[in-house]
Amino acid sequence: MARAAKGDEVLDSAAALFAANGFAATSVREVADRAQLTKAGLYYHIRGKEDLLYSICAHSIETILAGARRAVAEAADPRSRIRALIRNHAAFFERHPDNLTVLTRDMNALSDEPRAAIRKLERDYLALIRGTIAEGQKTGMIRRVDPSVAAFTLLAALNTLNLWYKPRGKVKPAALIDQLETLVTGGLFAAAGEG
Amino acid sequence: MARAAKGDEVLDSAAALFAANGFAATSVREVADRAQLTKAGLYYHIRGKEDLLYSICAHSIETILAGARRAVAEAADPRSRIRALIRNHAAFFERHPDNLTVLTRDMNALSDEPRAAIRKLERDYLALIRGTIAEGQKTGMIRRVDPSVAAFTLLAALNTLNLWYKPRGKVKPAALIDQLETLVTGGLFAAAGEG
Repeated sequence: MARAAKGDEVLDSAAALFAANGFAATSVREVADRAQLTKAGLYYHIRGKEDLLYSICAHSIETILAGARRAVAEAADPRSRIRALIRNHAAFFERHPDNLTVLTRDMNALSDEPRAAIRKLERDYLALIRGTIAEGQKTGMIRRVDPSVAAFTLLAALNTLNLWYKPRGKVKPAALIDQLETLVTGGLFAAAGEG
Repeated sequence: MARAAKGDEVLDSAAALFAANGFAATSVREVADRAQLTKAGLYYHIRGKEDLLYSICAHSIETILAGARRAVAEAADPRSRIRALIRNHAAFFERHPDNLTVLTRDMNALSDEPRAAIRKLERDYLALIRGTIAEGQKTGMIRRVDPSVAAFTLLAALNTLNLWYKPRGKVKPAALIDQLETLVTGGLFAAAGEG
């Protein structure tokens, strides 16, 4: 297996263990065992446990942000952009539910410098969402609420999915994404004649 | 000061310290100092640090639930009930922002039995919201999404306010509550002719 692919497997193993048992309670040995590596083999991919946490958080927010930038660039109007932002974030959660748990719950275990780097990526993402909302308000397509209140309300719906959603339950992932889009855009989009 | 009033002050002091520094990093001595009590005086009101955490969580969810039940009983129709539920929860956050931080972040530090008691109250609250949504769907007033998806999306907007909202910022508390109501009900309420 190439180094990059094995590196992804190491991150997935670590995210699953951190999500299930918490960052503090997980040992490097357990991550190595789950990724079927010796401890020495694991240290070929990572510098230590904090490096694993940083890589999971950075990889998660970078992936969401890159998808969001692509979605915004490709969509034809502000409403399509908002829909694409919601679907991009929800699809990342569907593919990597453990990463979202680690990013939203364990990120504060990072020391100052790596935490600041993650916060910077989060601010970039927030600015992209807020800017898309503000742009839609200029055209009258989006309700005239404060763009930060609107952006955080959108993010709240997506960033708390890991706390309650069970993919094997009654609501299948595709239906979940459709319903989230309905609920969040219904709140954001101005009704006809309201603009 | 009567025992009950001093007890409330103890809980407020503890909630402020837990919210600022975390449950694990706060000592009973610090809570006593902030409430202007000796340690012995504090133990007249509480059995220990976990008892403080339990009391903050229980008092918070019981207050929100009692307000929600009153609001639902008094409102004339499902849409008014949903509006009243949102305003009740947001108003509790406005009055007790630290309690919401402790309830959503530190609650898992409780041992099994008290945590189960808090979870029971949370389930009762969720059932009230979900039931109100389902009732509104029967009348066509509320969009036909899964009532649990809708209830958790509503709760997400309210239970994450402590992560970003600054009452002294640009958006004043009354405007925040209005905008949350607009965003959440806009998502839930069926548009004219959509029922």
